[in-house]
Amino acid sequence: MKLGYLGPAGTYSEEAAYKYSPEAEMVAFASIPTVVNAVEKREIDQCVVPIENSLHGAITDVLDFLVRSDEIMIAGELAVPIDHCLMVKPGTKIADLTVVYSHPQSLGQSRIYLGTALGHTQAVASLSNAQAVIDMQESDAVAGAIGPRRAADIYGAEVVAEAIQDNPNNYTRFVVLDDKDRSPTGHDMTSVAFQFSEDEPGLLYKALGVLTENSINMVKIESRPTGERLGRYTFMIDMELHRMDPVGRETIERLREMSSWFKVLGSYPRMEELPIRG
Amino acid sequence: MKLGYLGPAGTYSEEAAYKYSPEAEMVAFASIPTVVNAVEKREIDQCVVPIENSLHGAITDVLDFLVRSDEIMIAGELAVPIDHCLMVKPGTKIADLTVVYSHPQSLGQSRIYLGTALGHTQAVASLSNAQAVIDMQESDAVAGAIGPRRAADIYGAEVVAEAIQDNPNNYTRFVVLDDKDRSPTGHDMTSVAFQFSEDEPGLLYKALGVLTENSINMVKIESRPTGERLGRYTFMIDMELHRMDPVGRETIERLREMSSWFKVLGSYPRMEELPIRG
Repeated sequence: MKLGYLGPAGTYSEEAAYKYSPEAEMVAFASIPTVVNAVEKREIDQCVVPIENSLHGAITDVLDFLVRSDEIMIAGELAVPIDHCLMVKPGTKIADLTVVYSHPQSLGQSRIYLGTALGHTQAVASLSNAQAVIDMQESDAVAGAIGPRRAADIYGAEVVAEAIQDNPNNYTRFVVLDDKDRSPTGHDMTSVAFQFSEDEPGLLYKALGVLTENSINMVKIESRPTGERLGRYTFMIDMELHRMDPVGRETIERLREMSSWFKVLGSYPRMEELPIRG
Repeated sequence: MKLGYLGPAGTYSEEAAYKYSPEAEMVAFASIPTVVNAVEKREIDQCVVPIENSLHGAITDVLDFLVRSDEIMIAGELAVPIDHCLMVKPGTKIADLTVVYSHPQSLGQSRIYLGTALGHTQAVASLSNAQAVIDMQESDAVAGAIGPRRAADIYGAEVVAEAIQDNPNNYTRFVVLDDKDRSPTGHDMTSVAFQFSEDEPGLLYKALGVLTENSINMVKIESRPTGERLGRYTFMIDMELHRMDPVGRETIERLREMSSWFKVLGSYPRMEELPIRG
């Protein structure tokens, strides 16, 4: 099975792909459009892409692709803790470091640790967390790098501090994309997208009412522009049901009737509730 | 009056600032965080920042700042059409161009025109639409640039084609930020943000029900992560009321009672409905 992800190896995306399917043949892609298009063209079987981060919100490229694609469905979800590690060339001491490499977002998420334990070092931007480890190893300075443990494993670096990010509850939710979704397990999630005709305000309220009447838990709501004009949105909802269950069928039928455009993005096994940390 | 915007001069942000207040003393800032912080510290009186684009959606940096800030409110809104122009050094013909400069987003929004009328040219990325005009003027090649008409006016370029973007309904909505919002005009918008306590699903439905009962039009709903954990959101709603009107007071009081956290982001004059083009 060929599994695509947002490369290079040693990023949190590769960690998510590996967690989802350790046996798969991993294929790295340079961007979200290229990896999702490769699934659409069946050059690869599935891909694992980030859809939401607990600090930064939705990955809109992925949402917009799901709304647009006629071929691809969501077949799974999983969450990966964004635990930044400080890694060094084996044997190096933190006190001796002069430079620390990482992706700017990871540096921004580790401000407290950078200002205290690493106050004596200079922070330098790398193109990715994986590249940061390579930059560290090629540096003439006594250098460290911040990134996922998997990058240290792959590139042979030593982890000298763990979970150094400011917010302990930094998670990214990933989705598995395939040409079909999954059968009911009794513990499922369904993602849908819909639009309303312009001249009927209050329809979103009525749509949420269908979920309330059927005692269905809505986990998430997002709005994305339709591109038609400012103020017109596609709503995207994640809800705890399977589209083939009796209540699921009825709920989806009623939502479809209310909408001017409606699409099931997929039904798939629900991930476990995440622990709250810190 | 000192009015901040996302610079440099000749961008759509400067066009919005100029449209809002042609007499103001304009102050350019390099990023959204620096311009909003300058209003917060009262180094400038107001700023005009993008909050939403009709193709790309919310500008999340601005939403997150509004949720976080205790000092700043929304005092106005306006929409600016993102009409890309092709500009050249005066006297140059389109047929003779070999290179076209623009910001990668503007190039991406003008794919059809680039592939047809400019099929004989090479597209080159610039740091901003304003910088593209400078790059064009400094180029040794017979060069053009894509960007707002205002950039041509400022830098003395000639506009040879207008509205060359793929989608004619490309608008950006800007908000005016100040240390206070505005008095009722009878034609107002109010933006609020709120969170619910974790153990009460269906509260969003009840909240939207308050608007429906009071016949209040909800124009927009966004969800942003709270940062506490994956699956916890701050909801942001724009609705057609003023917080000082009788119905507005009652609506806001009821929403506040339902929420575990609630904030009025501002009441301000509503902009006119936009025409649909193309």
